[in-house]
Amino acid sequence: MTEDPFWKNELATRMAQGVPHALALGIEFVSVKDGVGTLRVPWREDLVGDPDTGVIAGGVITTFLDQLCGAAVMSALSEHNPIATIDLRIDYMRPAEPGCAVQAEAQCTKVGKNIAFVRAVAYDHSPDNPVAHASAAFMMNTNRRPGANLGEKKS
Amino acid sequence: MTEDPFWKNELATRMAQGVPHALALGIEFVSVKDGVGTLRVPWREDLVGDPDTGVIAGGVITTFLDQLCGAAVMSALSEHNPIATIDLRIDYMRPAEPGCAVQAEAQCTKVGKNIAFVRAVAYDHSPDNPVAHASAAFMMNTNRRPGANLGEKKS
Amino acid sequence: MTEDPFWKNELATRMAQGVPHALALGIEFVSVKDGVGTLRVPWREDLVGDPDTGVIAGGVITTFLDQLCGAAVMSALSEHNPIATIDLRIDYMRPAEPGCAVQAEAQCTKVGKNIAFVRAVAYDHSPDNPVAHASAAFMMNTNRRPGANLGEKKS
Amino acid sequence: MTEDPFWKNELATRMAQGVPHALALGIEFVSVKDGVGTLRVPWREDLVGDPDTGVIAGGVITTFLDQLCGAAVMSALSEHNPIATIDLRIDYMRPAEPGCAVQAEAQCTKVGKNIAFVRAVAYDHSPDNPVAHASAAFMMNTNRRPGANLGEKKS
Repeated sequence: MTEDPFWKNELATRMAQGVPHALALGIEFVSVKDGVGTLRVPWREDLVGDPDTGVIAGGVITTFLDQLCGAAVMSALSEHNPIATIDLRIDYMRPAEPGCAVQAEAQCTKVGKNIAFVRAVAYDHSPDNPVAHASAAFMMNTNRRPGANLGEKKS
Repeated sequence: MTEDPFWKNELATRMAQGVPHALALGIEFVSVKDGVGTLRVPWREDLVGDPDTGVIAGGVITTFLDQLCGAAVMSALSEHNPIATIDLRIDYMRPAEPGCAVQAEAQCTKVGKNIAFVRAVAYDHSPDNPVAHASAAFMMNTNRRPGANLGEKKS
Repeated sequence: MTEDPFWKNELATRMAQGVPHALALGIEFVSVKDGVGTLRVPWREDLVGDPDTGVIAGGVITTFLDQLCGAAVMSALSEHNPIATIDLRIDYMRPAEPGCAVQAEAQCTKVGKNIAFVRAVAYDHSPDNPVAHASAAFMMNTNRRPGANLGEKKS
Repeated sequence: MTEDPFWKNELATRMAQGVPHALALGIEFVSVKDGVGTLRVPWREDLVGDPDTGVIAGGVITTFLDQLCGAAVMSALSEHNPIATIDLRIDYMRPAEPGCAVQAEAQCTKVGKNIAFVRAVAYDHSPDNPVAHASAAFMMNTNRRPGANLGEKKS
């Protein structure tokens, strides 16, 4: 594709601002394109879970990685279509260093017609010494096939 | 135990208010005691992911379940000790009904000396028709054994 | 449905015998119907991981729960259609008691048009004191929509 | 370390042969050292799940990745100590190509005092086009601290 269409810019803005809890974190949009994305959350005192350690709360990392995985999948689609998270797993390797921003990179490892998979890594200094890893699966094009969405019940 | 100690009340307050992104969601504390907890997030227009559907964003459910699982584990401890999430998995079964509050219940399924497991279910009307399920593992007493925390690197 | 159709009996047999690694475990078919299933693996000395403890190897529990989750989903379908596992998570709470059979129960918690979710619990004495828990997501009817399977690559 | 100690060779042998269900798969040991491992399972007709497709059964991949993750962690330890799987997640991206061997590579992404994390990828032709991904967490040195194992119940 030669040009980022409108919806991708809209996506970027929504990612940087998003729903209130993402907005509250001050997530910064670095880049997200063609199934690969990078976001950043600067360290702030009010994001700390335990004041004794100064470590960013695990829940902040969760929200951050969750937003990033969704953004990466949306950026891999050729058209703007709703996606639905099927599931998400996060592994927390170690506390982030107090006072440091946390950055995360995501990559779609598979984009099929219906399912996409994403992996992401969060880190303070280097992706080789990760703070957390995420794996997620998404259902795509949920509005294309009437009755095909996750919410429908078995008859 | 005959009486909820101070730290459990503090925990309850922190859960209801929490770090900014949890606070931004307006999570309501219902109850959390002895490894079992219930939280509630009222529907609000600004928590909606896709305005076309009115469905609460998946990321809100993620944050909500993450907070709840941690609260349930803390309430299972006989003393106030730091815990660290090892990992978290969330399955998203279907969209929550637009306009409805989402409630979630968590239960510790195992509390060992070092590791605790929690399962949680989020729903709008009944836990038998879940919106999402969560499974998480936590490391406990991370301050008891010097050098035992997740953050330490292999020498 | 009034009668188990042929393919369900075939399923039962395949579950009890299955591919070589399941067959090698001596998995016993207890029941599997309408999205709910129970399998059993008797304790055998050659299934033990560490001879010092006599505990059944974790890998045996993995294979056992994996087979069970797939069987539960197949039994929930109204027609015989291929299914594909999207993902599987297993939490290992504690070692099974040496010398005891391990039984596991699975239940489909959601069956949509395209995705099904299953949860299972493995135990030696009671499901209230689990050895392991499993959560899995499956894609269904993979042969109905040409090109819709997981294996297809994005063009 | 200058030389692989005896227990590592023993490990290698056990991995190549292992408990019956791993043995039944004909898993081949390629290499496992210092937290990094590679195993291989040749295609065989009796490992096929659905005869119509010739694709190796998903359960074979599960068992294979489970064995590999454990082997990678054991090879990262400086002494021979028991390990216990805390949890395992496997994402199945696509069917393996019929007739092809499946190879898998695992790497410990974090080795702490108590917890180790591993990620693995299974593929037929290239790790860049994966068949499946695995993420797992392990508890280490379970025999060092009496009463510290996962199996102990909270008093």
